[in-house]
Amino acid sequence: MKVLAVFSGGMDSATLVWKLLAEGHDVSLVSFDYGQRHRRELQSAAAVAVQLGLEHQIIDLTGLRPLLKGSALTDASVDVPHGHYESDTMKATVVPNRNAIMISIAWGMAVAENMDAVALGIHAGDHAIYPDCRPEFHKAIEVALQLGTDRLGMKLFAPFIRMTKTDIAKLGGALGVRYDLTWTCYEGGEAHCGKCGACQERQEAFRDSGVADVTEYAA
Amino acid sequence: MKVLAVFSGGMDSATLVWKLLAEGHDVSLVSFDYGQRHRRELQSAAAVAVQLGLEHQIIDLTGLRPLLKGSALTDASVDVPHGHYESDTMKATVVPNRNAIMISIAWGMAVAENMDAVALGIHAGDHAIYPDCRPEFHKAIEVALQLGTDRLGMKLFAPFIRMTKTDIAKLGGALGVRYDLTWTCYEGGEAHCGKCGACQERQEAFRDSGVADVTEYAA
Repeated sequence: MKVLAVFSGGMDSATLVWKLLAEGHDVSLVSFDYGQRHRRELQSAAAVAVQLGLEHQIIDLTGLRPLLKGSALTDASVDVPHGHYESDTMKATVVPNRNAIMISIAWGMAVAENMDAVALGIHAGDHAIYPDCRPEFHKAIEVALQLGTDRLGMKLFAPFIRMTKTDIAKLGGALGVRYDLTWTCYEGGEAHCGKCGACQERQEAFRDSGVADVTEYAA
Repeated sequence: MKVLAVFSGGMDSATLVWKLLAEGHDVSLVSFDYGQRHRRELQSAAAVAVQLGLEHQIIDLTGLRPLLKGSALTDASVDVPHGHYESDTMKATVVPNRNAIMISIAWGMAVAENMDAVALGIHAGDHAIYPDCRPEFHKAIEVALQLGTDRLGMKLFAPFIRMTKTDIAKLGGALGVRYDLTWTCYEGGEAHCGKCGACQERQEAFRDSGVADVTEYAA
């Protein structure tokens, strides 16, 4: 199948890409620049694409930045919370409706190129904080986009939606994912901070899965 | 209610705005610059916003232009079809998944501003050609966005979804919509061409509704 993967440059979507390739799909990648503080992830995304020799487009959505106010990921006046990934303080990292926006654009691109599916790496660890990572959202948006484009057979793959990040790391370890090329940290630095909720979750996933953590941490 | 209206600068969404105001809603407007050939409509949208004293934002989505290939609305290598609006040739004006993209962004903005609803002017005359103007799409995307943002009570208004453009013109005539400020033509000119499918549909709606057509046509 021809599959367009929404690719952030992080662990989850990198594992998704390796999985799709292992399954024999014809994969291309799309990333989104929505003014995120951690734009460093886009460099990681590009590095992975080059490593794998895949087509990769970065879509400029910076026009949305002033509108998605109040999220620590896009609003410089809001601090990135340090604490556990699933805690309430991480709600500051919600960008309202981010996944629906990114999925809708990717779906339009996939339709224009006569592709068979869009894939994304949302997983069970995100369910508590991000409503747009939950199975009921996934099913509903897939149906809406099928109807909206008259492509009832087109698919929205989300193979990790009932897996934890530790499960994903385990799978990625087996697939040989180049985690050294990926980026997780929500802070804007040049190395992973090791303190933000996203970094803590990354560390936890490597530790619990038994996969070596080759990340360079600033702390 | 606080309502964000997706506003193209055309007849349908202008009538929508007048209707929402007549019903007492607190209305603000959003338009999208997606590299459409008929960017002239954005000037019309701005003129209507000034006329009504409403907040109006134009979101820059021109980063999407090269990706939504093959539509006469965005791809300079495809001619705008001249013919009846509901005919097969008008399929060249489909921008894949355009409404899902615009609705998703507007919904995210509305959530960020704690608004109660997003409104759009899709109508029955569009159903044949544009799958993303049909009632089943409307219902499905509303549910998906409610789930994706944990706003189960938020609404996606589409009050014209079972009305024809002639019905809309009739309503607009009664509401005193300033149709002279609106823009319909798909060609990129400074006056309405009077020949493209969109212009033909505009003329038909005025004629059949008995509302005076004050449009300046080039032909």
